[in-house]
Amino acid sequence: MNTVNHQILLASRPQGEPSTENFRLAEVPVPELGDGQVLVRNHFLSLDPYMRGRMNDTKSYAEPQPLNQVMMGGTAGEVLASKNANFAVGDKVVGMGGWQDYFVVDASQRGVLQKVDTTHIPLSAYLGAVGMPGVTGWYGLVKIINPKAGETVVVSAASGAVGGVVGQLAKARGARAVGLAGGADKCRYVVEELGFDACIDYKQHADLKSLSAALKAACPNGIDGYFENVGGMILDAVMLRANAFSRIAMCGMISGYNGQPIPMMAPQLMLVNRMKVEGFIVSEHMEVWPEALKELGGLVATGKLKYRESVAQGIAAAPEAFLGLLKGKNFGKQLVQLV
Amino acid sequence: MNTVNHQILLASRPQGEPSTENFRLAEVPVPELGDGQVLVRNHFLSLDPYMRGRMNDTKSYAEPQPLNQVMMGGTAGEVLASKNANFAVGDKVVGMGGWQDYFVVDASQRGVLQKVDTTHIPLSAYLGAVGMPGVTGWYGLVKIINPKAGETVVVSAASGAVGGVVGQLAKARGARAVGLAGGADKCRYVVEELGFDACIDYKQHADLKSLSAALKAACPNGIDGYFENVGGMILDAVMLRANAFSRIAMCGMISGYNGQPIPMMAPQLMLVNRMKVEGFIVSEHMEVWPEALKELGGLVATGKLKYRESVAQGIAAAPEAFLGLLKGKNFGKQLVQLV
Repeated sequence: MNTVNHQILLASRPQGEPSTENFRLAEVPVPELGDGQVLVRNHFLSLDPYMRGRMNDTKSYAEPQPLNQVMMGGTAGEVLASKNANFAVGDKVVGMGGWQDYFVVDASQRGVLQKVDTTHIPLSAYLGAVGMPGVTGWYGLVKIINPKAGETVVVSAASGAVGGVVGQLAKARGARAVGLAGGADKCRYVVEELGFDACIDYKQHADLKSLSAALKAACPNGIDGYFENVGGMILDAVMLRANAFSRIAMCGMISGYNGQPIPMMAPQLMLVNRMKVEGFIVSEHMEVWPEALKELGGLVATGKLKYRESVAQGIAAAPEAFLGLLKGKNFGKQLVQLV
Repeated sequence: MNTVNHQILLASRPQGEPSTENFRLAEVPVPELGDGQVLVRNHFLSLDPYMRGRMNDTKSYAEPQPLNQVMMGGTAGEVLASKNANFAVGDKVVGMGGWQDYFVVDASQRGVLQKVDTTHIPLSAYLGAVGMPGVTGWYGLVKIINPKAGETVVVSAASGAVGGVVGQLAKARGARAVGLAGGADKCRYVVEELGFDACIDYKQHADLKSLSAALKAACPNGIDGYFENVGGMILDAVMLRANAFSRIAMCGMISGYNGQPIPMMAPQLMLVNRMKVEGFIVSEHMEVWPEALKELGGLVATGKLKYRESVAQGIAAAPEAFLGLLKGKNFGKQLVQLV
């Protein structure tokens, strides 16, 4: 093939807040296929907050993103050519294709490429509610928070790909769901579209006292479960309203991703309230994916699980869209559409 | 009876650091026995850090200690008179007798008074290694940290009634046990008498960097479990050395008991390291007491579980001994001996 593949590479590591200068657009030819390999045309790239951590060269749970290589990330697309008996031209697939138009993968390795059924579920949903973000929300809610009917579950970044799933699954289990989101539009969406019981616009609360009062009003029976995506003052405010035996699923702390200090004000509340706090990474719990995806897929296919997408167009738009995601400029799942 | 009962009452609530002025000695007659009641002569009072929290009138897991009433607390003693068929004069018993020479209790209520066997276990041990502090250590170590052989367990206040048990139980399970204690004497005791692999004198480390380096040296394979008694800088230093999937049992945070702020510097480490952090109160887990006491009692009776006691003499010495405990002046389990 003589097709040109456009790629976004990590050009340099950010010092503090990242910028478009940390990325570089490259053009390379699409390679020939070897035995067992499959050529995939990426239709959608998934942009996710965890990618910020991998831009740093520091010890973390994941290997750092190597410099001058294609930004890693989940993708959904279509098989254009195959030398693998398990994949045929036209198959819809998800995988870790990275920020590029095309990728070639040895599909004989189990799990690197998954065929998906788009009869009742849109392809892009496999990067959101029926993909990694959905399972992330499912794991934290079901396996860590595990709410009983009547309990109150709070989730930050509630309009996002993960947070929206958390609240809707909590509601489905008979819990009260309270979101935190940035701005009146997002809050309205969280309540009116996603069906949360309440949503607090954190931008309206400049200090802990104000935010804590808003949480008290929205959670008259206190907080039994919290799904953490942001950290910082929001975590402190939630802890002030946490009930005895409450649980926190620690999924992300985006407020500290650029290196800002985000101390927890009163860790003694974990003791006073006999809390369980658990950090997790969904890729380390592959054993729950089938069960989670079954529930999530069923809910999306029947229209019971709602979500929203922010879709940037074209590979060159990926860096800007990613930087916006880190600042909460997206509204729902942030994607880049390539086809 | 015309016997005089000496009692220590809570006279006022402390503002910040408590002092002897918050306590008052009272003399009252020992009351007559009613049906079902038992008169106990307290031989030992147990002084425990949790009592500091109850001196405040703030929301916590336990009811505040009422003003002008006998300080609540565990006691070990002997039955002097009984109108209850289950208790006979001369029985050795433990209960919540409070800071006083004698107490009368309706012993028909299950659990308020326990007969104990002092054939192989000293009476005072039922307030320490074979009592609430021992079960506290057992619960945090076995039910939360649950170390595998070869893992490293760190415990603060390692020479204390709880910490000493934690480290010795960790060793018995094949783990590496590392203590933190205040002063060379305590550290020597923790290693030479209790058999920990190492002990760090936290008083030799004025800042986080220094303490973290000491932990690195003492825990070359990182930290898999931490039993928290103190909070503050020690917790921050431990978290910097925590391994993936490490567990923290939150038992106490004595460094913040007088209201000092004790923020957790980097809560994002709970996420990065996929940690589990759990606060607990042993009285809420009565279901484990039989199993725990069986192991602890067996180990003490056979000399395999070692402990040390600081014993103040006479009821009037209780306030001073308690204030010393809060400052780490005790060495091992702090008791007051009355007989």
